[in-house]
Amino acid sequence: MTYCIGLLLNDGLVMMADTRTNAGVDNFSSFKKLHTLADTPGRQIFACTSGSLSMSQAVISLIKEGLPAAEDSDMIRTLDKCTTMFRIAQLVGEAVQVAGRTVGAALSAINISSSVSVLLGGRIGKGAPTLYLVYSAGNFIECKSEAPFLQIGETKYGKPILDRGIDLAMPLDEAVKVAFLSYDSAMRSNLGVARPIDMMVMPRDPKLPLLLRRIESDDDYFNHLSLRWAELLHEATFEIPNPPFMADLIGK
Amino acid sequence: MTYCIGLLLNDGLVMMADTRTNAGVDNFSSFKKLHTLADTPGRQIFACTSGSLSMSQAVISLIKEGLPAAEDSDMIRTLDKCTTMFRIAQLVGEAVQVAGRTVGAALSAINISSSVSVLLGGRIGKGAPTLYLVYSAGNFIECKSEAPFLQIGETKYGKPILDRGIDLAMPLDEAVKVAFLSYDSAMRSNLGVARPIDMMVMPRDPKLPLLLRRIESDDDYFNHLSLRWAELLHEATFEIPNPPFMADLIGK
Repeated sequence: MTYCIGLLLNDGLVMMADTRTNAGVDNFSSFKKLHTLADTPGRQIFACTSGSLSMSQAVISLIKEGLPAAEDSDMIRTLDKCTTMFRIAQLVGEAVQVAGRTVGAALSAINISSSVSVLLGGRIGKGAPTLYLVYSAGNFIECKSEAPFLQIGETKYGKPILDRGIDLAMPLDEAVKVAFLSYDSAMRSNLGVARPIDMMVMPRDPKLPLLLRRIESDDDYFNHLSLRWAELLHEATFEIPNPPFMADLIGK
Repeated sequence: MTYCIGLLLNDGLVMMADTRTNAGVDNFSSFKKLHTLADTPGRQIFACTSGSLSMSQAVISLIKEGLPAAEDSDMIRTLDKCTTMFRIAQLVGEAVQVAGRTVGAALSAINISSSVSVLLGGRIGKGAPTLYLVYSAGNFIECKSEAPFLQIGETKYGKPILDRGIDLAMPLDEAVKVAFLSYDSAMRSNLGVARPIDMMVMPRDPKLPLLLRRIESDDDYFNHLSLRWAELLHEATFEIPNPPFMADLIGK
């Protein structure tokens, strides 16, 4: 399993991916799922992958090494030749399709799921950051302000917290905190999601630096957040009155 | 979609089911999914169903009308002849299998999912209440004290709250409140779960009355709980400090 979040806010872009992979509970490991596709002054592109690990790695390698030339051209198509984020999303979608026709078909033949999905985020030049979700068929959607986050993988446990807590106008540090709370819920309910969590924060202001950080299993800030959140939820639950219509039943 | 919860606590049994059914977002309706199978002084049995509505209704009707006789007997098998809750769970599992062979096979033939699952709870005589989850293959598990709740349907959005908030030793009214919070999350994240919510509370003490109640779409207590929970979560999020490692990035 995997859990990845992408937030596209007024102040910038946040992408996170956990690192747990597993083929059954008796075979789990840790792999980086937040990939740097480009990080030069003019081009900062990142991808989080969810799904079959071999498919994910094939997709990332295809993107990095370049896709076969189109019929009407003799050029290997690579990321650095794409002039817009939309073109890059198309290239990633095509890499997903190519991997699906090769690795995916072999997996399907032995009834193993070969689906893979990708969160793709970044910026070209000094343009505003953008965020895409590329589905396993290679089609994709772009994140827009009406719903300022996208998720892939084990999305449901952590979605209620994002639904309530993420706001287009919030500062990036607060958004990262809410995303951590979402991870805390997902990790508590599914063993297939676990720290370390890799994160990338790209402020909208291109003069501000990019943050790449790994939140380790013993990260003090995350540990404190997790403990304090449990206490606060307990207090919040206690704060709400119990249903009045049950007073008779429990003999109060 | 559907969301049903069963809680088996020291103080008794709680079962809840929402009422929304849909065949696509353009075709939704409201059906009772918490069924009274028996409610006499010596036998109080309830079932919540999730999955195909026609399958669910077939299962409930089969249970109520009785299953065909076993090979070595000439009696139609009905609920009131079962002497233990385990036997009743077997009968329900068999009803699920019979419906699967008839209605289910017809649905599968046109690639429509026919899976159905059942939460079965109740007591015989003055025995302690028990709770079972009957899967779509007709096999079942019994709820035990290590994990005092079971869910069926759209389970994930509301599970983190149950994981944190449900405790074997808590009073029934507080447990109902936590279950409502779980519904609040599920309803916020999935349009396929909606009020009215039907609920049944069976105190462990057989001298105490059973509570059957419908929480309507305009229920004052639930509305207040939902609003207050949103406020409290917001306050709790605010209470946790933002990540210290982002101070530079956001220019604080």
